[in-house]
Amino acid sequence: MRLAIDAMGGDDAPGPIVQGALEALSLDAELDLVLVGDEKVIHPLIDGKIDDGKRLSVIHTDQAVGMDESPAVAMRRKPNSSINVCWSLLAEDKVDGVVSAGNTGAVVAGGLMTRRFLPGIQRPGIAVQLPTMTGISILIDAGANLNPKPEHLFQYGMMGASLVRQVYGVENPTIGLMNIGSEDTKGNTLAKETANRFRNSFLRDRFLGNIEGRDICRGLVDVIVCDGFVGNALLKCCEGVLDFVVKRVAMELLGSLDSERQKAEEVLFGLYNQYHHSEIGAAPLMGIDGVCLIGHGGSDARAVKNAIRGAKKYRDVNISIVDDLSNDRNSSPTPAKA
Amino acid sequence: MRLAIDAMGGDDAPGPIVQGALEALSLDAELDLVLVGDEKVIHPLIDGKIDDGKRLSVIHTDQAVGMDESPAVAMRRKPNSSINVCWSLLAEDKVDGVVSAGNTGAVVAGGLMTRRFLPGIQRPGIAVQLPTMTGISILIDAGANLNPKPEHLFQYGMMGASLVRQVYGVENPTIGLMNIGSEDTKGNTLAKETANRFRNSFLRDRFLGNIEGRDICRGLVDVIVCDGFVGNALLKCCEGVLDFVVKRVAMELLGSLDSERQKAEEVLFGLYNQYHHSEIGAAPLMGIDGVCLIGHGGSDARAVKNAIRGAKKYRDVNISIVDDLSNDRNSSPTPAKA
Repeated sequence: MRLAIDAMGGDDAPGPIVQGALEALSLDAELDLVLVGDEKVIHPLIDGKIDDGKRLSVIHTDQAVGMDESPAVAMRRKPNSSINVCWSLLAEDKVDGVVSAGNTGAVVAGGLMTRRFLPGIQRPGIAVQLPTMTGISILIDAGANLNPKPEHLFQYGMMGASLVRQVYGVENPTIGLMNIGSEDTKGNTLAKETANRFRNSFLRDRFLGNIEGRDICRGLVDVIVCDGFVGNALLKCCEGVLDFVVKRVAMELLGSLDSERQKAEEVLFGLYNQYHHSEIGAAPLMGIDGVCLIGHGGSDARAVKNAIRGAKKYRDVNISIVDDLSNDRNSSPTPAKA
Repeated sequence: MRLAIDAMGGDDAPGPIVQGALEALSLDAELDLVLVGDEKVIHPLIDGKIDDGKRLSVIHTDQAVGMDESPAVAMRRKPNSSINVCWSLLAEDKVDGVVSAGNTGAVVAGGLMTRRFLPGIQRPGIAVQLPTMTGISILIDAGANLNPKPEHLFQYGMMGASLVRQVYGVENPTIGLMNIGSEDTKGNTLAKETANRFRNSFLRDRFLGNIEGRDICRGLVDVIVCDGFVGNALLKCCEGVLDFVVKRVAMELLGSLDSERQKAEEVLFGLYNQYHHSEIGAAPLMGIDGVCLIGHGGSDARAVKNAIRGAKKYRDVNISIVDDLSNDRNSSPTPAKA
């Protein structure tokens, strides 16, 4: 598998990005990597550190999108940004996938511009993993599509189900729609039309209807479908409340303990890191014909290495999505609308 | 102050509703209450329990909206529901306010139908209190308005600021807009237009721009403005994550402790109840000419008593909102659009 790595994307890029790429290469002989970025800073980081030079190449560009830059402005002013060059390599079939820990909006914008979607997919969506009482759930979309149509949300549910089946081994994944009440009559037009779309599709038995914000961590469904604005707000809300509760527990609890204070501290911070870490992993942009993994801006070398090594499993997910799109065409009484 | 109490609204109504009303009456000699609901079940609950019969009356109706009923369907089929009768009493100036622990959607729908809004207010919004590292923040709207316009969100910010000033004593409340990134360029059209509306208003110095989901519990702003769909999802998400984290901490931590296990358990559940309770309090529907308090469905007599006793403070908030609406008309270069 050959991947384009956005060497300039991430809070501390390119150091940990290049380091993670080198570690992944050393662990997987079937991996080819293209580091995209400023060769002046990349070369000193790789020189002498790799035996088989054929499996690692560098494509130079001196443009990079900052983490806080507007994706729209960056697309205009920096057509040769490292992110865009990665996408061009995928569009030209020179790589099988793109990995970036850079500006999420710019990664998505680049993907939308190349329009290299799986056949039938209308819009890609970001799938993130959230911890639940029973394991994990996938929330899709976490911010790629701020004005989705019902068909987009339907496809997100379908892609999320493929992801959960292929990557997490859940045989018959269930799907829920984020809404403001559990009853069918609740919510806005988008929610109602999306629910109808699911109920009239081959996924009708997997679709459990509406779920609410309080159900996310209960693990009621395997796949939570929502629009990108809501999904992004919820993802960050989970992060913030986790942080808040653990800090408040630490403040109140640790001060009240004596002989077992240290033990309690270890357990508490172990738990915090367990859940905090789960969101550091790279999130796939689902619906791309190829693989696109978006890492957390704060990714260290280990996170980058893991993202790269995990990329190949998403090829199987894509095969499953293409199958499901064909199931949908053959069985849905409501045809997919553009 | 005279209040209409929806005696039939709430998971365990009318028992705790009537009990809370009786307790409030006994504590405040200036209070008059009208219990609205089925007199056959209300009378046995009050007979012989009140000295001054003039301050408590019952208005009979045998229609009540169930907690899970569709507000739209209920409005059609049950025009004389206890909720609607409460609103009619306010519309006819027979009471100063409405208190209900019933179906939130039906309470809001009744308020929209009577259109008894403060002059200049286009749509009412639900304000809820959330705990933060520095105290509390007010989130508005938590679900009254699923398709708001920028002007609605602007008015929510203004009303939230009045609420925080009058009820919580914050001299110069700050306002933030829920968005998917902190930069001005982020978000959907609604978010961008709302930010412009604040920046061109008399509230420009109070408006701190965008905040994200992870900022909610950090207490970055006093008032968090968001559309009702997002606000409802976030409110319930906070509740769910609090529940999840406390349960996970209890599972991991308590089992690992020995001599100080009981002490830890007490602190942990004390903290849980502290935050869990904060959301049981009644939330005001802001923008009504009068007072409307929406209690949690699970309100007990104490919660109902506190909601009723707290109602009068919202009259001062309304005076402050009317002042602010006049400030806005006099100072905003962008006129308010309908």
